[in-house]
Amino acid sequence: MTKYRIEKDTMGQVEVPADKYWGAQTERSRNNFKIGPAASMPLEVVHGFAYLKKAAAYTNCELGVLAQEKRDLIAQVCDEILAGKHDDQFPLVIWQTGSGTQSNMNVNEVIANRAHEIAGHVIGEGEKTIQPNDDVNKSQSSNDTFPTGMHIAAYKKIVEVTIPGVEQLRDTLQAKAEAFKDVVKIGRTHLMDATPLTLGQEFSGYVAQLNFGLKALKNTLAHLAQLALGGTAVGTGLNTPAGYDVLVAKYIAEFTGLPFVTAENKFEALAAHDALVETHGALKQLAVSLNKIANDIRLMASGPRSGIGEIIIPANEPGSSIMPGKVNPTQAEAMTMVCAQVMGNDVAVTVGGTQGHYELNVFKPMMAANVLQSAELIGDACVSFDVNCAAGIEPNQTRITELLNNSLMLVTALNTKIGYYKAAEIANTAHANGTTLKEEAVRLGYVTPEQYDEWVKPEDMTGSLK
Amino acid sequence: MTKYRIEKDTMGQVEVPADKYWGAQTERSRNNFKIGPAASMPLEVVHGFAYLKKAAAYTNCELGVLAQEKRDLIAQVCDEILAGKHDDQFPLVIWQTGSGTQSNMNVNEVIANRAHEIAGHVIGEGEKTIQPNDDVNKSQSSNDTFPTGMHIAAYKKIVEVTIPGVEQLRDTLQAKAEAFKDVVKIGRTHLMDATPLTLGQEFSGYVAQLNFGLKALKNTLAHLAQLALGGTAVGTGLNTPAGYDVLVAKYIAEFTGLPFVTAENKFEALAAHDALVETHGALKQLAVSLNKIANDIRLMASGPRSGIGEIIIPANEPGSSIMPGKVNPTQAEAMTMVCAQVMGNDVAVTVGGTQGHYELNVFKPMMAANVLQSAELIGDACVSFDVNCAAGIEPNQTRITELLNNSLMLVTALNTKIGYYKAAEIANTAHANGTTLKEEAVRLGYVTPEQYDEWVKPEDMTGSLK
Amino acid sequence: MTKYRIEKDTMGQVEVPADKYWGAQTERSRNNFKIGPAASMPLEVVHGFAYLKKAAAYTNCELGVLAQEKRDLIAQVCDEILAGKHDDQFPLVIWQTGSGTQSNMNVNEVIANRAHEIAGHVIGEGEKTIQPNDDVNKSQSSNDTFPTGMHIAAYKKIVEVTIPGVEQLRDTLQAKAEAFKDVVKIGRTHLMDATPLTLGQEFSGYVAQLNFGLKALKNTLAHLAQLALGGTAVGTGLNTPAGYDVLVAKYIAEFTGLPFVTAENKFEALAAHDALVETHGALKQLAVSLNKIANDIRLMASGPRSGIGEIIIPANEPGSSIMPGKVNPTQAEAMTMVCAQVMGNDVAVTVGGTQGHYELNVFKPMMAANVLQSAELIGDACVSFDVNCAAGIEPNQTRITELLNNSLMLVTALNTKIGYYKAAEIANTAHANGTTLKEEAVRLGYVTPEQYDEWVKPEDMTGSLK
Amino acid sequence: MTKYRIEKDTMGQVEVPADKYWGAQTERSRNNFKIGPAASMPLEVVHGFAYLKKAAAYTNCELGVLAQEKRDLIAQVCDEILAGKHDDQFPLVIWQTGSGTQSNMNVNEVIANRAHEIAGHVIGEGEKTIQPNDDVNKSQSSNDTFPTGMHIAAYKKIVEVTIPGVEQLRDTLQAKAEAFKDVVKIGRTHLMDATPLTLGQEFSGYVAQLNFGLKALKNTLAHLAQLALGGTAVGTGLNTPAGYDVLVAKYIAEFTGLPFVTAENKFEALAAHDALVETHGALKQLAVSLNKIANDIRLMASGPRSGIGEIIIPANEPGSSIMPGKVNPTQAEAMTMVCAQVMGNDVAVTVGGTQGHYELNVFKPMMAANVLQSAELIGDACVSFDVNCAAGIEPNQTRITELLNNSLMLVTALNTKIGYYKAAEIANTAHANGTTLKEEAVRLGYVTPEQYDEWVKPEDMTGSLK
Repeated sequence: MTKYRIEKDTMGQVEVPADKYWGAQTERSRNNFKIGPAASMPLEVVHGFAYLKKAAAYTNCELGVLAQEKRDLIAQVCDEILAGKHDDQFPLVIWQTGSGTQSNMNVNEVIANRAHEIAGHVIGEGEKTIQPNDDVNKSQSSNDTFPTGMHIAAYKKIVEVTIPGVEQLRDTLQAKAEAFKDVVKIGRTHLMDATPLTLGQEFSGYVAQLNFGLKALKNTLAHLAQLALGGTAVGTGLNTPAGYDVLVAKYIAEFTGLPFVTAENKFEALAAHDALVETHGALKQLAVSLNKIANDIRLMASGPRSGIGEIIIPANEPGSSIMPGKVNPTQAEAMTMVCAQVMGNDVAVTVGGTQGHYELNVFKPMMAANVLQSAELIGDACVSFDVNCAAGIEPNQTRITELLNNSLMLVTALNTKIGYYKAAEIANTAHANGTTLKEEAVRLGYVTPEQYDEWVKPEDMTGSLK
Repeated sequence: MTKYRIEKDTMGQVEVPADKYWGAQTERSRNNFKIGPAASMPLEVVHGFAYLKKAAAYTNCELGVLAQEKRDLIAQVCDEILAGKHDDQFPLVIWQTGSGTQSNMNVNEVIANRAHEIAGHVIGEGEKTIQPNDDVNKSQSSNDTFPTGMHIAAYKKIVEVTIPGVEQLRDTLQAKAEAFKDVVKIGRTHLMDATPLTLGQEFSGYVAQLNFGLKALKNTLAHLAQLALGGTAVGTGLNTPAGYDVLVAKYIAEFTGLPFVTAENKFEALAAHDALVETHGALKQLAVSLNKIANDIRLMASGPRSGIGEIIIPANEPGSSIMPGKVNPTQAEAMTMVCAQVMGNDVAVTVGGTQGHYELNVFKPMMAANVLQSAELIGDACVSFDVNCAAGIEPNQTRITELLNNSLMLVTALNTKIGYYKAAEIANTAHANGTTLKEEAVRLGYVTPEQYDEWVKPEDMTGSLK
Repeated sequence: MTKYRIEKDTMGQVEVPADKYWGAQTERSRNNFKIGPAASMPLEVVHGFAYLKKAAAYTNCELGVLAQEKRDLIAQVCDEILAGKHDDQFPLVIWQTGSGTQSNMNVNEVIANRAHEIAGHVIGEGEKTIQPNDDVNKSQSSNDTFPTGMHIAAYKKIVEVTIPGVEQLRDTLQAKAEAFKDVVKIGRTHLMDATPLTLGQEFSGYVAQLNFGLKALKNTLAHLAQLALGGTAVGTGLNTPAGYDVLVAKYIAEFTGLPFVTAENKFEALAAHDALVETHGALKQLAVSLNKIANDIRLMASGPRSGIGEIIIPANEPGSSIMPGKVNPTQAEAMTMVCAQVMGNDVAVTVGGTQGHYELNVFKPMMAANVLQSAELIGDACVSFDVNCAAGIEPNQTRITELLNNSLMLVTALNTKIGYYKAAEIANTAHANGTTLKEEAVRLGYVTPEQYDEWVKPEDMTGSLK
Repeated sequence: MTKYRIEKDTMGQVEVPADKYWGAQTERSRNNFKIGPAASMPLEVVHGFAYLKKAAAYTNCELGVLAQEKRDLIAQVCDEILAGKHDDQFPLVIWQTGSGTQSNMNVNEVIANRAHEIAGHVIGEGEKTIQPNDDVNKSQSSNDTFPTGMHIAAYKKIVEVTIPGVEQLRDTLQAKAEAFKDVVKIGRTHLMDATPLTLGQEFSGYVAQLNFGLKALKNTLAHLAQLALGGTAVGTGLNTPAGYDVLVAKYIAEFTGLPFVTAENKFEALAAHDALVETHGALKQLAVSLNKIANDIRLMASGPRSGIGEIIIPANEPGSSIMPGKVNPTQAEAMTMVCAQVMGNDVAVTVGGTQGHYELNVFKPMMAANVLQSAELIGDACVSFDVNCAAGIEPNQTRITELLNNSLMLVTALNTKIGYYKAAEIANTAHANGTTLKEEAVRLGYVTPEQYDEWVKPEDMTGSLK
């Protein structure tokens, strides 16, 4: 049977599970927002809070408004949170107040109660050693802490998961572009046979896409690095000591090792979350690129007999118990599902971004959750796709050569030798008869077999060997 | 040199091009909203207004608040508008006031001035025979006329263009499903070879998709048939004679030949446009279906040598001057571009739909324009795709048979004859050697050629011939 | 230290945690798809599988292809799964193969191993009593089971969570519409003051919106009720006994108590998921409606002093420790965040829906997850909004009266008494002087105070009392 | 009666209107793609083609593969096109082949026939002076010309319309931020009264939003400046003279005065249009910002009596014939409709971007049209909003002061003087009695009127005057 203790806030008393650090406001939110699975608020945001609460404590102490003992207690709990020791203390959902106030209070309450415990007391007994509002939340408001926490969380996720993941896949594709640079194959436009190119050239296009995407994503980081903290309730910085905003950003930068700075305009930083819109826009661009790449790869790997079959992808799991060679492009499927999700998330973030009113945008938790999900899915999916698919891609040289040599597009190489009209006649005849160009070219008496082989060299049509 | 005359409204005098019927408020809007190309407000909405202005005149007359001569003058101009005689009199843009007030006034002004002319007067001289506000707009408000006009326009477009277009394509695909019911071909899942089915079965899936889509679209018409007219400014029907709302809807139904009725709740009809959201949702579903269909067809038509090549689509335009058989799937490309546009338009309509405030949604022109564009594009694209592509699709029987017979999936038919393990051995050997199942089955001594032909019959695997 | 046992599939041996029921293919998927949090595949889909596996066992038995003892063992485990006893046995993610094959195998493996245990054996020892592929998956394919499972899951969620939630809120709003039917207030169009209506009329618009949305949602259920099961790999029903598809749907209907039927076209049911697109379209329409309603309510509740303040919403949590009356519209914020998410999810579902190829759509898990999330969020958010906000809404009669009486729009009531021009003069003077209409009307000598009170009755302008 | 002449292509003869310059392929496209209104292909793309055709002629001439006379004829027609002399010669629609081949041919045919005329011949008589394919299209393919044309068009639109438009509005808002820097007003969070700030601070947030948006948009220009031209059919540059790609980009840069360069990877430039996705992502971000700004302004301007009424916006058109002060926020409505459209267009562009296959993306015309529409709408809407609304915004000082002084949030200023509890008592009492803080503070005997005025200074709470 669950035991409870009594916690209080300005509205009165609330029963809270005795084994939890959270307090009255967290418990109220748990009961008032039973929407979707519990604890859906991303832990990354909570950890972002831990960084900023510690930084605020240091800043408040340095600026003379918080005692050093309190600073150290707060910092110690923040470090515990960052070490993952309290992950089960944050039960709230995304779908709460749109300022994230209740998650801010959740963090404040957990820090205060855990600090009380560290200080040798029993939670719920005696006056709190650290007050959640007066001490942990000092010089802060939900309105500036939540956006700060979500910027920290998003920035970290992008530099720790998204970018490394995309770069890992990009590097593999780059290596493949090199490795396949002499693999001449039929080109396709409108899904129809076209003039040849190399498999390496195709892969170089994928590399270029990801490089553009990475650049676009990195372009957004400067905005994301700007932190709202110091704006407090409406952006004016009411109730903060002089110099607080710059210093607290410096501490956050120090604790995270990331180049955070104070926002140049706090009103924008509270009332609009265009930084998240901007960052997610770049994530969506990466999704667009990855979708194209994954699609191409599954089309090229299709078969084994009745598809394109120009490349072979690793067989990671049973495709069919009886049919050999049925290697389903499962990594491409996971990747394109991720891309569709990111495209959807982009609309959610966009819609949220449009709806700030006056001094506050109240779609913060939803926007943060979508950015974090997209950033993680893209990073993870790139690594998964890389390790389980891209790294193992090999050309099916036999098939590539067969399709290339069967192609009628090679006839263009004869134009300059025998003239356009004879070349076209060869192609038309081969198309009508279902034969090869060489067969018909020789049969029609326009070239000898030796001439055909000398003149029709697909590799000369790729530009890559010039 | 353009000549001008003076028109007045409650704000004062405005110079208007002398050869135009519109008045002061139209001219103000022209000058105040120079956003995008001129006259972007869909003419279909203007024609919707013509229906409702005529119906309002009849209703007002019948209920004793408008003289019969005025009714007849108004009706005569409305008929001229519907005959397309005044299409150049509506210069306003979508991006005006979100209630569409200015387009309502544009219609009122054109009707009034043209009526003055019909009555034998010179525009701009003497008192107006018909007052734009007092007569043409009697018992109306922009707030109930614009939504009425857009419902009329959307309903007409859907029943006159969208549904017939989709049905035309559906009928062709249905005929193809019948025609191809014995064309056994390799199936593909995950883009990989799978067990066989008939080409007719594939097409029957397309038919089912469109039938579901048509049903979904028709499900939305009941909501779209409800007209706001009679709600006037805020939905209370202030300044309308008793019985007006029901009667005016009856007249609109009579004049359009469509089953319009008065909205059961006028507050909803002004403040929300969920009817448009609902209808566009069904248009989007059709776009989803059409995208799948067009994609499949271009994949199946790909080649001519290095693709799938199971079907042949009509060659409507030069694909390549030298390469025979390069028939680009241009209709599929137009169709899928339309689908992407409709998917985008759906978001625009959705966003507009969310943003009503209190008694009025002020995203009306944008929502109407997107619904009309999507409805027209889908209808037109279906007809174009039907006439220029679907109707001419033929199976490439040689290629279909080749791919089917090469397939390793047919080995499953031997399971019950020689056991799973021997069957798998045949398939594995054929895969390794690049040979056919029959070759290896005979070579391994498990079956005779005659047995193979008797036992491995793809048509028995399609279920379609049972 | 985790102990492992060896499990096998056609690709060889795999180490699996000894305390888990799952087998080789589940374990491979766990390792090959480390994308996002573990176990993200919705449990509702797993439970959908439990229904269908049980139904398949009954059908197979009845049609003579499965022994009764096996049927009973399978059914017993399915019942355990439905009772929630094995929720930790399904560790796979959404971002796996797009056919959901691996989750199908996960269910097959868990059922087989748990059945082995129930039959008195030790997992991993001896031949399996029930074979995951041959018995549990008999007459099935991932390609028809996964869409069946997701239809079951979505249908259940919608009728058990979404519809009841929306109806609960609708009923409360309906009761408020009744209760507030005599509360005359100022109307607002373009956010600007307009003619009056009653608060009840405003709420009746919300009720109408939700009724239209519920109808639209229910319209989609017929498509969702169609089950793919019986189509097997490509829709032809290969390897199913005659009558299987109809019978298995009948069993599913019986076990779930919901009106499921076999799909009229199995090719559509595997290759397209327009049913999910259709259903989610209706969820999105509800999100549009709910967004409008929640927005209106927070605007009307804004204040307490410097906003609109026409209604009072319940104070569920501390808004500000010092400022009384700062009751943040947190439920409206949660609701509108949910709406934005649903709008985004709609795009994800739409994109997934467009991308089926040939005989299979491979965006199934992503589409299912989004439909389930949206359906749950809308249902939960409606209940939360109802209980914690809508049910407690009260008019702030003082404020409503103040705003109504201050309004200049009431002057229209004098038109018929003293003429348009004098009425306009009164309004203009009051606007210029910042006074009330009554003050100026009397001061100008056009009416007596008694006449004013008799003639200017806002309640006569609402139409509601006629 | 329309007269026709005969034009030929590789498929045979076609009748073309005798008064038009276009040829057989344009006419075929006109007939084969009757989808939506005629001539929907943006003229900006046609003009982009004119630049590139001229640049190609110069490059071909300089590299020795085109005679100087031909170069000059081609250049002369291109200049005529750019001067707008042939706008009626481009009748094709967006919804054609997805490579835009037919619009490329339209341009080629018009140039060739007009050049024939300039050279003194009659169109349709004699051999063409300039061949559309061999001369005008020399060293080109639709596959590299269309993306080049659309990049030119988009780049020009953004630097000529979008950026200047946004900057114009930004500058006005910046001037307002300065002008309103001492206008202290009540802040609002969650739409509820909060601590004060200045109207200038609010506007500074809008300025910051637009500055971030402009920076984000400019960040995308480097990618957009990369031109595909020189890649020809599949990206290999087949059939182009050495050095062609770099030189032709140089000429385009020279003719347009914009910093175009040849694409670093031609395969990416043909097969993916992530540059358009990237650019439109930034346009969407601007739409998000503009939506927030326009929303705030219409909320602040709401009233005149029963809304917020803190600012006064220009009255540009009659709002209501009888109600003075009913100034509808029509510019804000046009702006937010534009924003919704841009949000929708973003999805269309995104979806198109995902669907390239192999060497070609065939959603080019649709993507280009959406980028151009969004770029134009944003630029135009900003100018319209600036001229007709933002420039005329004035604070309603009386109302601002009234709302500020009525606010209960100012009580926080007394905390440090009389203690938290007494301050809260004052606020609670004022809230309960509907009185002002000052009244209750004095009545309760905690402060004198003089002390109240000295201690409660909202301007000291804004941080702006520090």
